[in-house]
Amino acid sequence: MGGDFAPGHVIAGAVEALRASGGRFSVALVGPEETVRRALGRHSIPEDLLTVIHAPEVIEMEDSPMAALKAKKESSISVGLRAHREGSVQAFVSAGNTGAVLSASTLILGRLEGVGRPTIGALLPTAGGSPCLLLDAGANVDCKARHLFEFAVMGSVYLREVMGIQRPRVGLLNIGEEESKGGEVVLETFGLLRKSDLNFIGNIEGRDILSGGADVAVCDGFVGNALLKFGESVPSFLKARFTMYAQRSLKAKLIGLVARNSLRSVMRDMDYQEHGGVPVLGVRGVSIIGHGGSTPKAFKNMILRAEEMVTRDVHSRIQETVRKHYG
Amino acid sequence: MGGDFAPGHVIAGAVEALRASGGRFSVALVGPEETVRRALGRHSIPEDLLTVIHAPEVIEMEDSPMAALKAKKESSISVGLRAHREGSVQAFVSAGNTGAVLSASTLILGRLEGVGRPTIGALLPTAGGSPCLLLDAGANVDCKARHLFEFAVMGSVYLREVMGIQRPRVGLLNIGEEESKGGEVVLETFGLLRKSDLNFIGNIEGRDILSGGADVAVCDGFVGNALLKFGESVPSFLKARFTMYAQRSLKAKLIGLVARNSLRSVMRDMDYQEHGGVPVLGVRGVSIIGHGGSTPKAFKNMILRAEEMVTRDVHSRIQETVRKHYG
Repeated sequence: MGGDFAPGHVIAGAVEALRASGGRFSVALVGPEETVRRALGRHSIPEDLLTVIHAPEVIEMEDSPMAALKAKKESSISVGLRAHREGSVQAFVSAGNTGAVLSASTLILGRLEGVGRPTIGALLPTAGGSPCLLLDAGANVDCKARHLFEFAVMGSVYLREVMGIQRPRVGLLNIGEEESKGGEVVLETFGLLRKSDLNFIGNIEGRDILSGGADVAVCDGFVGNALLKFGESVPSFLKARFTMYAQRSLKAKLIGLVARNSLRSVMRDMDYQEHGGVPVLGVRGVSIIGHGGSTPKAFKNMILRAEEMVTRDVHSRIQETVRKHYG
Repeated sequence: MGGDFAPGHVIAGAVEALRASGGRFSVALVGPEETVRRALGRHSIPEDLLTVIHAPEVIEMEDSPMAALKAKKESSISVGLRAHREGSVQAFVSAGNTGAVLSASTLILGRLEGVGRPTIGALLPTAGGSPCLLLDAGANVDCKARHLFEFAVMGSVYLREVMGIQRPRVGLLNIGEEESKGGEVVLETFGLLRKSDLNFIGNIEGRDILSGGADVAVCDGFVGNALLKFGESVPSFLKARFTMYAQRSLKAKLIGLVARNSLRSVMRDMDYQEHGGVPVLGVRGVSIIGHGGSTPKAFKNMILRAEEMVTRDVHSRIQETVRKHYG
């Protein structure tokens, strides 16, 4: 029931994923059974590949996460994650209320041993093409050094196992490149990262994200959230600016029209969330969160991404790596 | 001697400013006298309007601010600010090492009474046109609530007195709009701002900066610096993306070419630093910092902006407002 176009886009995406899967997995749809079955009616998929788990309640996008989880014990988010914990499904995917999915994933699946704070990142586009994983993207504010360090560990394992980057370059977001920069927490994190066997490339600055200076950019969730939302606002800002530009003259108007269309295309390429959502890292299981506006294709990609995380056993890899660093 | 094109652009800008001034002010150029006089040779300006103050040393852009200020007591930055403190000039303008100008302004001019941390902001473009003043842009990290509150006060006075915005809308940068969001420092700042008589519009998010949701965006210098540098990297990122787009086909190549040119024009319009630098707020005097790449026009605008700050007596207005809030 998550996302702006549920259950339509969710179901269409699940069907597409099953078609692409070659029978490797099945999908369980979680939601009010009648609603889901009605929407499902249009698709003809064998029942053993596409089942329905009844969840009568729905957490809305604008609900306060903790309050909603408490009030709606039978929401599709809680029911789905409980099914995962109990082993009837091996992964959970949702485009619902981000805060609720994050909190429920932590509460229901539990944290990995040694992980203080599970995190969600955001994949930002870069000039070169391969995205930069910004961690934490808003789940945790006022982080301590060990939390920031955990983000670096979890982000590195994720990029290695799922995105195929062998030695992800970890950068610590700071206000300058010099080792002496930043406040206490950042300085302490620098020390932890340098001692580790991660591929730590030192401090990076705000400009190094889009330029592709690091594969993982580590920061407090306050900073990450501000950057992510700032970045998300760039396309509409540019659109407005191009419109202003186009009003200067007829020539400018024509140029502006042409430019805006290419801009739209360029922006579409950049939306990595669209390419498979972002995982909750640090929990005992696979939980992937998608954009509210997820298309059927996005749901399909999230499901395939989830399968990959299960196959690669990403949370066990994270568990091993965290243990090694603290062991 | 500040900026990438000193002293050429500095002098050319000073000459342009004097031509525009109608004799309202004179300019003193601070730097190694021989170098300055040689560069000045090309311009014919009456000696009473353009004087030279000898400063034999130069702080380079890559120097460490505090070390350089200590080692080079006779740098153009220190000599110029001492001339301001002693009253032989009424304002100071530089496109030199930002950290050095900021530190020297604080050390030499001194802080206003009640101001814990002088600050520098950055003017960011918005979709609507009038810029957003992001405060602090990197001068102060690990700020306490009262520092963030001071930034809001100083930014509001600056925008009112210099940019003519009568009731600047002050937004507190946060990870959500709800009052309960954010860590301790931000929550405490929210309380201080709400009690004040500033035009406080509540929490804003990263996306509200470019969309023009506030005139002053208040945040810790760590966050502000990350946002500013991220924002500054958007143009070259887009350029790279448009180049990739252009490689798709011949049609795309033509569209890409057209788009890139309009993009360049749009980006140029957006560089507000170019339009007059940013002031150090909270010191006993007028000190304006420009981009390293400042053009003659930028220097001219910084000088005219400095005159305006003197005429409007901005630092006395800030002093009054700070006193009122703490009095």
